[in-house]
Amino acid sequence: MTKQPQSPDLELPQLAIAYASGAFTPSTLVEHILGEITRRGADGVWISVVAREDALARASHLESLPRRERQALPLWGVPFSVKDCIDTVGLPTTSACPGFSYQPAKNSPAVERLLAAGAILIGKTNMDQFATGLVGVRSPYGVARNPFDPAYIPGGSSSGAAVSVSAGLVSFALATDTGGSGRVPAAFNNIVGLKPTRGLISGVGSVAACRSIETLSIFALTVGDAQAAFDVARGYDEEDPFSRTGAPAAVRPLPAEFRFGVPAPQWLDFFGNADAAALFSKAVARLQNLGGRKVEVDYAPFAEINDLLFQGPWLADRYGALRQFVDKRPEALFPVTRDILLGGRDISGGDVFAAQQRLNILKRQIEKLWNEIDILIVPTTGTIYRIDEVAADPITLNARLGTYTNFVNLADLSAVAVPSGFLPNGLPQGVTVIAPAFADHHATALARRFHDAGLPLGARHVRPAASPVHGSRDKETVS
Amino acid sequence: MTKQPQSPDLELPQLAIAYASGAFTPSTLVEHILGEITRRGADGVWISVVAREDALARASHLESLPRRERQALPLWGVPFSVKDCIDTVGLPTTSACPGFSYQPAKNSPAVERLLAAGAILIGKTNMDQFATGLVGVRSPYGVARNPFDPAYIPGGSSSGAAVSVSAGLVSFALATDTGGSGRVPAAFNNIVGLKPTRGLISGVGSVAACRSIETLSIFALTVGDAQAAFDVARGYDEEDPFSRTGAPAAVRPLPAEFRFGVPAPQWLDFFGNADAAALFSKAVARLQNLGGRKVEVDYAPFAEINDLLFQGPWLADRYGALRQFVDKRPEALFPVTRDILLGGRDISGGDVFAAQQRLNILKRQIEKLWNEIDILIVPTTGTIYRIDEVAADPITLNARLGTYTNFVNLADLSAVAVPSGFLPNGLPQGVTVIAPAFADHHATALARRFHDAGLPLGARHVRPAASPVHGSRDKETVS
Repeated sequence: MTKQPQSPDLELPQLAIAYASGAFTPSTLVEHILGEITRRGADGVWISVVAREDALARASHLESLPRRERQALPLWGVPFSVKDCIDTVGLPTTSACPGFSYQPAKNSPAVERLLAAGAILIGKTNMDQFATGLVGVRSPYGVARNPFDPAYIPGGSSSGAAVSVSAGLVSFALATDTGGSGRVPAAFNNIVGLKPTRGLISGVGSVAACRSIETLSIFALTVGDAQAAFDVARGYDEEDPFSRTGAPAAVRPLPAEFRFGVPAPQWLDFFGNADAAALFSKAVARLQNLGGRKVEVDYAPFAEINDLLFQGPWLADRYGALRQFVDKRPEALFPVTRDILLGGRDISGGDVFAAQQRLNILKRQIEKLWNEIDILIVPTTGTIYRIDEVAADPITLNARLGTYTNFVNLADLSAVAVPSGFLPNGLPQGVTVIAPAFADHHATALARRFHDAGLPLGARHVRPAASPVHGSRDKETVS
Repeated sequence: MTKQPQSPDLELPQLAIAYASGAFTPSTLVEHILGEITRRGADGVWISVVAREDALARASHLESLPRRERQALPLWGVPFSVKDCIDTVGLPTTSACPGFSYQPAKNSPAVERLLAAGAILIGKTNMDQFATGLVGVRSPYGVARNPFDPAYIPGGSSSGAAVSVSAGLVSFALATDTGGSGRVPAAFNNIVGLKPTRGLISGVGSVAACRSIETLSIFALTVGDAQAAFDVARGYDEEDPFSRTGAPAAVRPLPAEFRFGVPAPQWLDFFGNADAAALFSKAVARLQNLGGRKVEVDYAPFAEINDLLFQGPWLADRYGALRQFVDKRPEALFPVTRDILLGGRDISGGDVFAAQQRLNILKRQIEKLWNEIDILIVPTTGTIYRIDEVAADPITLNARLGTYTNFVNLADLSAVAVPSGFLPNGLPQGVTVIAPAFADHHATALARRFHDAGLPLGARHVRPAASPVHGSRDKETVS
């Protein structure tokens, strides 16, 4: 063990420099991270953490590799977390339901690829049970503490995943996204959430949330880091019924003078949060400064798809995948989650076919929109809520958080949620850059330019507050 | 009215010659066809026929066009029929259910295109009610008389459509195909059934049978005629949720030394009909003579998809599309049809999602098969049944007829059913040439070469029999 930095910088380029300079090693980094996790105590981030000896053995193994082998590993020594609905050998998979817990025999293919690329697994992260929710409070393992203000929700369902990145405990997190689970928590944690085109990362070895439309996703501090992890994790998988290869034809890059759609004013709802509205206006202005031409678009098809998702027939997919467990052990479920899942039981096959047919029509309306715009920009969420607010009205507030995220997977689009700044109360907000399926690189290219505008990364340089803090962004971002 | 030939030849090239030579005109042809329909009487082919004055007005209109305009119409003066689940203005749409009958305000887009190309509508054809069945006997409008032997079923659901072509009453028929409705009757009537890639012909203005997987289809005397009608009828339709444009990339032509798959022997079931088995062996030999290399393939994924279709969740699509009517007026339905449709009522949404997921896996197995073969050849049916046999066991015998057809639309394949010869009892049999989606031209190219081997067309040169006839094909084909 050599010198151990107080606050290692986990962005991939900084981490590579720190390793190269000898500022620390995989072993000292692992020691530091596990120490920090112990120090933080019951922060609600983790459902299980890799045993110290196992993590150190992994670090030692990576250190023992010949230099040439190490250099060939794109994620050598990079710490990461895995949402607890994704299998990793040696830790149970719970999907945040203790009664559902099982010991997986194999790593999920995405985890396998990340490990093969040299990454170091730190632990399994907390989540809204069975990935049902956008709030991050529907878990018997507690609420992952929002690093900006613990009175506020972390966002979900990938709550612990997002906090693990924001709090500087890992470089990136493997998570999932059905209706916004890989984007809403990014907004509430000032990090990047990359939700790729469905089918590009294998879903094998993950607990189904809504198999026909979900995807694995990546959280990271920067778009570049998320892209690096995604490039490793992705890959066609014959065992995954929804796996897809990339686009058959090459897609051109995003034009320099791009047209970006935003929902027409009557569709932009910040649920009374004028500060969030002002922040979104600034984001739009920043995009215009980046060479974009704003085009106001009719949000009606997106809003209708939102309604289809969580109030409609796709609940049957959610329930169907879990019914053996839900029917046999309803008492094992978190109450809100149980009520939601059981809502899928009485949906008929005819309803499903009718909704899929309607979805095709709505997708077609959206396809035409791509003649008028190159990219779509939405607030990732209209606002953020405190834990007590969500407790008082769990369904309505959860649904509001999906206003700008629910439709994306159903409409077969790709998206990157990226930070856009801070509210006067110190809480972060974000925008989501949305592109057609297989045009993920349009979304990442623009998100990268947008994010490079000088925001702090995650919560590393932001003072954690014990209670709601009000003040300017500048004040909050001074460490 | 000039001279009226006794037996006009309705193949498109022959018809063009007859028109060009003045042997007859659209008006005399219409007179002849309507006379023949009257002469045949209650043959079960038609649910409604265009009024004589309307058909003659249409013919006169076509005759009155300037020569240049006429020549620009690819189907000028070509008589056709439309299955009675497809809308044509002026005749009711019944889907073979009198209680369901309605007067459509618009032509279906395919009908509109055919009329715009100069075709002449003769009437609406009988069918298994709501396109549910492969037998052609599930209709309150009677059984379309099989021109080779009225004791035998015509095949369904597009029964009247196939007979209208086989009996020489129209040049081609617009029909539909979900599980074989556009292929099985082709086999039993010695004609060609072109079932294009799903989504290439608009389904707007047709009564849903199983909307998510059905397609409109074409019957004709030859592959070339079917192709000509298909080329007119096809076209992307924004109003159809399942409409698709053609393949994004150009698909190469079928290689001269092609590899054709046939079900491995243990999967080839002719249900005890050794004559049908022998005829299929001859067809395989003929394909080898045409330059093909036979590859025996595992039929398991196809057989499993067959089971998914009619015994499984897609019944919910069938029921769902018609439930307003079925639930309110069950007594208006043909008894067998009612029982089948009601089977879709209790299928859950979860079952549908699970089946769709399983289907994706099976489709993937089939996709890999295309690395080993260029085209798949199956008997269109394993055998043919008499009307009394089907009456005694309506469900089992109907299901057997789908052994080689049910999977095709679910697996997203294209197919052409083409005659392959006659059984000793005088009944025709056929094979189906199956290609991947958007490779319809592979199927038509091979089907055309296969069919050019010298068989009679339809039933024109075959003596109609009042009772089962036994004898050689040559005997039957002498006019």
